[in-house]
Amino acid sequence: MSKLSSVAVLRIGHRLVRDDRTTTHAVLVSRAMGSEVIYMTEVDDEIKKTLDKVNKRWGGENEFRLEIIDNWKRVLKIWKENGGIVVHLTMYGAPINQKIKEIKESSQRILVIIGAEKVPKEVYFLADYNIAIGSQPHSEIAALAIFLDRIFEGNQFNKSFLDEKMKIIPSERGKNVMQRNQDYPSNSNSSSIYSRPKRNQNKDS
Amino acid sequence: MSKLSSVAVLRIGHRLVRDDRTTTHAVLVSRAMGSEVIYMTEVDDEIKKTLDKVNKRWGGENEFRLEIIDNWKRVLKIWKENGGIVVHLTMYGAPINQKIKEIKESSQRILVIIGAEKVPKEVYFLADYNIAIGSQPHSEIAALAIFLDRIFEGNQFNKSFLDEKMKIIPSERGKNVMQRNQDYPSNSNSSSIYSRPKRNQNKDS
Repeated sequence: MSKLSSVAVLRIGHRLVRDDRTTTHAVLVSRAMGSEVIYMTEVDDEIKKTLDKVNKRWGGENEFRLEIIDNWKRVLKIWKENGGIVVHLTMYGAPINQKIKEIKESSQRILVIIGAEKVPKEVYFLADYNIAIGSQPHSEIAALAIFLDRIFEGNQFNKSFLDEKMKIIPSERGKNVMQRNQDYPSNSNSSSIYSRPKRNQNKDS
Repeated sequence: MSKLSSVAVLRIGHRLVRDDRTTTHAVLVSRAMGSEVIYMTEVDDEIKKTLDKVNKRWGGENEFRLEIIDNWKRVLKIWKENGGIVVHLTMYGAPINQKIKEIKESSQRILVIIGAEKVPKEVYFLADYNIAIGSQPHSEIAALAIFLDRIFEGNQFNKSFLDEKMKIIPSERGKNVMQRNQDYPSNSNSSSIYSRPKRNQNKDS
């Protein structure tokens, strides 16, 4: 993947219902793009259910987790005590283009903080880096995605997820989804363990 | 910015209320990351209001627009007739890492299609490229952001927005926001046209 050993995401603030969809996106981006865990202070059951479904279908149940926490400051403190750095993504921060190299060189363990909307002022001072993914308002999901893409240099997309039931075979046209045959061990790497689902492969279009 | 002359975003599908927040994110990402227009078939008034507010405060009212359309196929057809290419972002597509160079070389005008959830099957065949920003489910906002970041190679963050009332001065700690002095012409480039707002600069933390 890269020399990075561990990336975690800490999402501060979540307004129930209003933020459910964006929170789901933040969770799935964290999972799909190489982080190991997303810490959240509050979360709707629906979001946990969505993640469980995705993990069961597309793999990685033991590689990515959503962890509910009481106290984000404690998570941050422990992360730092264990030699990790904390990067807070904010439109007010220093430009990503200028800082990404320094961040990559400074630690193999990165805790990325994103806020649902405004974050407590302390975050700006507890973080090792306040980084702007552009200085215009947009989306914490977009900011997280670009940050992870820059950190992993695109290699996050080469990751395989273990124990998946379905697997996408990249395709220039349409959808090509293979289904894992149940009689093969889940950790086999042979491509013969997959077969095309019997249903029309384009049914979901 | 780059040799690209024009990037537009076409968002297909929007389920009212449920998708309002993610749609707002898609609109703001399109604006902040170098595209000129987002075409949408349906949109809540709140989203237009949010964009208006952002344009008024942070600039770019004449540089980015949200356009409501009746018929996405027509938009796509006209785009192609004018020599542009169409890139559909989908987890089923060909890997971005393998295709980005070819896309950048093939046209200076790119229409990027993202779907709120499932898109009509025809999109896969009308697009010039079906591109996967990873083959795992995550977020069309994240996919769009990474695609634009790859296309513009980070230079989208150097863009200035005209006629802004507020401007962020990137900062390693806290928030540094300057307010445009009303007695300076809006197209002046001198930094002296800005002053720090009189209110406590960290009030919004």
